[in-house]
Amino acid sequence: MKEFDFIAQLQQQPFPQLPEIALGIGDDAALCTVPAGMQLVTSVDTLVSGVHFPSETAAFDIGYKALAVNLSDLAAMGATPKWFTLALTCPPNMEPWLAEFTQGLLTLATQHHISLIGGDTTAGHLTITIQICGFVPTGQALLRSGARVGDEIYVTGTLGDAGLGLLCVQNKVALPQKAREFVINRLNRPTPRLSESVALRNLATSAIDISDGLVADLGHILTTSGVGAEIQVKRLPLSPALREYEDAINLALSAGDDYELCFTVPQQKSVELSHMLPEDSYTKIGMITATPGLHCFLHDQKIKVPKSGYQHWAPEAATATKDLNLTR
Amino acid sequence: MKEFDFIAQLQQQPFPQLPEIALGIGDDAALCTVPAGMQLVTSVDTLVSGVHFPSETAAFDIGYKALAVNLSDLAAMGATPKWFTLALTCPPNMEPWLAEFTQGLLTLATQHHISLIGGDTTAGHLTITIQICGFVPTGQALLRSGARVGDEIYVTGTLGDAGLGLLCVQNKVALPQKAREFVINRLNRPTPRLSESVALRNLATSAIDISDGLVADLGHILTTSGVGAEIQVKRLPLSPALREYEDAINLALSAGDDYELCFTVPQQKSVELSHMLPEDSYTKIGMITATPGLHCFLHDQKIKVPKSGYQHWAPEAATATKDLNLTR
Repeated sequence: MKEFDFIAQLQQQPFPQLPEIALGIGDDAALCTVPAGMQLVTSVDTLVSGVHFPSETAAFDIGYKALAVNLSDLAAMGATPKWFTLALTCPPNMEPWLAEFTQGLLTLATQHHISLIGGDTTAGHLTITIQICGFVPTGQALLRSGARVGDEIYVTGTLGDAGLGLLCVQNKVALPQKAREFVINRLNRPTPRLSESVALRNLATSAIDISDGLVADLGHILTTSGVGAEIQVKRLPLSPALREYEDAINLALSAGDDYELCFTVPQQKSVELSHMLPEDSYTKIGMITATPGLHCFLHDQKIKVPKSGYQHWAPEAATATKDLNLTR
Repeated sequence: MKEFDFIAQLQQQPFPQLPEIALGIGDDAALCTVPAGMQLVTSVDTLVSGVHFPSETAAFDIGYKALAVNLSDLAAMGATPKWFTLALTCPPNMEPWLAEFTQGLLTLATQHHISLIGGDTTAGHLTITIQICGFVPTGQALLRSGARVGDEIYVTGTLGDAGLGLLCVQNKVALPQKAREFVINRLNRPTPRLSESVALRNLATSAIDISDGLVADLGHILTTSGVGAEIQVKRLPLSPALREYEDAINLALSAGDDYELCFTVPQQKSVELSHMLPEDSYTKIGMITATPGLHCFLHDQKIKVPKSGYQHWAPEAATATKDLNLTR
């Protein structure tokens, strides 16, 4: 008997019900169907309190973000999300926290019409593992490996906002109230680019979501595809809030947690792309080249690429994590 | 950039490759196919160090058991396992530990021919979440809800061994060396009853795996099916090691972690059952009744059912978990 079975309680919540789910929470396993012609797309991400978010982050935002980062992985594949499981490790007596956390999950699950099919509850340091599943028409998934020399490189939305949000949360930067709220919201409630992603299925040659920073994540596309890239840093899409910050370019290049998509499209398909996505939803930032590595240009001047890789929130004295290497 | 990406390293390990897996570790998500006529069966289980196993448990055994308990959930559904993901939260500098842990995973994955398709590595208190997926022919899954009055109740293997193993590990019981090794092996390397489970697909009306003890888990079948049960405690299958222990019946009824199957079969199918399973692999222990609740009989005497629910290993002074409610 699980004395603390939060997952069973979640069965009472109004999560969307899908025809593909024959049996959800409540047995030893869930039963689902995958339609003919569809591939099942699966991703899993863990968020650890004090590592991936400051422990004082609002419970709603933790629930929201735990699901959002997983949805973002499906967006990076061109997939449509369908269901998820939740493995929650948490301290006891967290009922009010759990109610808020559930609302965060539920808000995003309802918005994207995805179902919670099962999970596990265990006692321990707050750790949230969500596994998400979705469908993509067979052979149409967006991979990291398809970028070709001459392809144009694009990103959705704006970059660096979540990084600036983290600096605000850490009290390392002071911003006007409205800008502060904007960047913290970008940090805590990222928008998975699912609709953009579906539009890219027959256009993009490669895609990835920017979780660890543009340099790191575009780097994965380059390595996997065996190509290089040139980026025009003047083209990087910056929000009005970020534009006011002195080190904006560095954040846009190397801060993580924005969960925008970075993708490549053959030059001859750029007009078709403009018909598929709203003009203000994406930006061309550079080109795929035969020369290996990532090269950044400011006007015609090559600039040093900042050290890649977003450093996760690293507390100086968090109880459970103080001896740990807090990057991922 | 994940500085510590154990999952990527696992790509080099000789995990089985399956034709259903179009893309495994290395992109934003994995791509799999589910054949027509099959339902996807999904389960997830988390093991927390110091809660679900003593922290000094051998790394090989932790890897083995983390996968075994998930395989057991699929066995309880009559499903054939196909692939799994691993979300591993662990402290840094665990390379030798991780190598042993991997061998435990790999041993069982190879044995059951299942593939590792992805996962996530994060820093923190040792916590292992495995999600397993498998197939079952549509409509043939074994559920908890199908037990009917008059059905016979069976279990596979022997009961209570893992509970006695835990008492040995905790130095609360001293056993002869051979018996001690047997019960500790039953605790640390449970055998998921997958072949038995497939044989039961068209025979059993309900099934569950015994993770929390017979009383608790059979209780789930009774509640979900809306029936009661009578158990003859003299029929409970006990190993030679357990038979020597004074409180054997209580362990067989209420200790968890055995991962045997408990299932119900209509009386008229008992001969068919005997053709499907080796005689020594299962035991009839009682009957489903209309009277609600679980009633245990010794000879013709009704006995008190021990308090249900296995108490997970609860350390008196484990660092990360000392303030927690250590049952699940």
